[in-house]
Amino acid sequence: MPVLDLQQLNQFLAEHFPQGDQYGVLESVGRGSAVMRLAVSEQHLRPGGSVSGPAMMALADVAVYAALLTRIGPVALAVTSNLNINFLRKPLADADLIADARMLKVGRMLAVGEVYLYSGKAAAAEASDPVAHATLTYAIPQ
Amino acid sequence: MPVLDLQQLNQFLAEHFPQGDQYGVLESVGRGSAVMRLAVSEQHLRPGGSVSGPAMMALADVAVYAALLTRIGPVALAVTSNLNINFLRKPLADADLIADARMLKVGRMLAVGEVYLYSGKAAAAEASDPVAHATLTYAIPQ
Amino acid sequence: MPVLDLQQLNQFLAEHFPQGDQYGVLESVGRGSAVMRLAVSEQHLRPGGSVSGPAMMALADVAVYAALLTRIGPVALAVTSNLNINFLRKPLADADLIADARMLKVGRMLAVGEVYLYSGKAAAAEASDPVAHATLTYAIPQ
Amino acid sequence: MPVLDLQQLNQFLAEHFPQGDQYGVLESVGRGSAVMRLAVSEQHLRPGGSVSGPAMMALADVAVYAALLTRIGPVALAVTSNLNINFLRKPLADADLIADARMLKVGRMLAVGEVYLYSGKAAAAEASDPVAHATLTYAIPQ
Repeated sequence: MPVLDLQQLNQFLAEHFPQGDQYGVLESVGRGSAVMRLAVSEQHLRPGGSVSGPAMMALADVAVYAALLTRIGPVALAVTSNLNINFLRKPLADADLIADARMLKVGRMLAVGEVYLYSGKAAAAEASDPVAHATLTYAIPQ
Repeated sequence: MPVLDLQQLNQFLAEHFPQGDQYGVLESVGRGSAVMRLAVSEQHLRPGGSVSGPAMMALADVAVYAALLTRIGPVALAVTSNLNINFLRKPLADADLIADARMLKVGRMLAVGEVYLYSGKAAAAEASDPVAHATLTYAIPQ
Repeated sequence: MPVLDLQQLNQFLAEHFPQGDQYGVLESVGRGSAVMRLAVSEQHLRPGGSVSGPAMMALADVAVYAALLTRIGPVALAVTSNLNINFLRKPLADADLIADARMLKVGRMLAVGEVYLYSGKAAAAEASDPVAHATLTYAIPQ
Repeated sequence: MPVLDLQQLNQFLAEHFPQGDQYGVLESVGRGSAVMRLAVSEQHLRPGGSVSGPAMMALADVAVYAALLTRIGPVALAVTSNLNINFLRKPLADADLIADARMLKVGRMLAVGEVYLYSGKAAAAEASDPVAHATLTYAIPQ
């Protein structure tokens, strides 16, 4: 069972990421996992209608952070120390962006997670090919 | 000599990144290098006053992209295929963010660059320790 | 169906990686996926009995390369352009290392894959936590 | 001044990396920096005469580790947690590989360094374009 449920996690994120709704909305959480959805709007687009890289990176970061919090509880001070992202395909402009994140390791000092980003409507998205994949490391203050 | 000078590059970026001023402003360009400055404002901050990771990643991406354009000219279609960033220190909240980018390789298909992010006023910044370091790969359409 | 079957792929790897048996042995292949096993021996160990990072990186590289070949056929010239690896847990010294690789994207110019490394006997390994996770990018010559 | 001088560091590496001479030899150290040289031989080559990726990754890892030790002293237990490498150009087969490493951050828990790999004779190498660039993170046990 996650340490924080969906409602608690949403409340925590809202307090600690005031601009957070531009990063996406939590859809579900598990123990060490989280799914977020970003309703893509004008502010996330590049000319030509593609979702911008920074919008994808921000979503990836918050989704893995949420997955981490389901394990360690509301620790605002866990900080991203490394992010590596591969952009795989051009996301659709008129579709949501879905982030499917899970932790690969949660240690005392370091936690590592990965996240797949999909373009499309929630249910169908995970059946399709990912538009990006990222791994993130967080340092957990002692 | 860069293929594009500072004014041409600024114009190109303004056309292709309409939200681009939130990513930073070009200060200087060389052949395969570019320096950008982000005037940190409320929208770039996390609670506690730290510059957000996504703001730093966006700046890193645009700065290396600008460095690339000084080599290959105005190719709007070069796309980021990989970004790897290490967050090293907490940036100051009341200081600009300076990105110092240069290309490590510009091939026919792939280009790779690196960028150091510094926190502080332009001149002094580069003498200080970087707050982040990123490497980026761009795919160049044939 | 993979473009190359297990036997063809083993033969190709043996020709093109003469030192390859120190990197591991193919156990199975699918379309865009491959499982390799490294029988850990003295040459792969650090003092204290831990498998060395380079041994893990070599295994990760060959496993994803094999997964790629199941899609594009025997192209000796595909070259690794980026590798990002997170070391998650200390591998057991007296256990095999299992690499479970799959492609995330196979484009005309670029291919990206990921691989989980497990420590243990083949069947049981995948049920356990990974000791490392890597993503790799290959440039495919035109 | 480095915490360890060249001779002390060589001795420490020889004890802790018994296969280490296949990884390269220290040429010089500074405070937070190290230069290593790998005399490329048959065991490091791929068919066609190119230096193998794993040989380059091993050299990158040991060089940054040496740079770290010049700051924190002989701590055998610092472990690599992340390595990201971009392969930029094909190294020469009949030339040494030079690694020029320096630390970007040495914190209490985490240390991050970068390294450029050059192909060629020591003095001339650094004037040429790098064949690879890597960043590495080490976790420092408390």
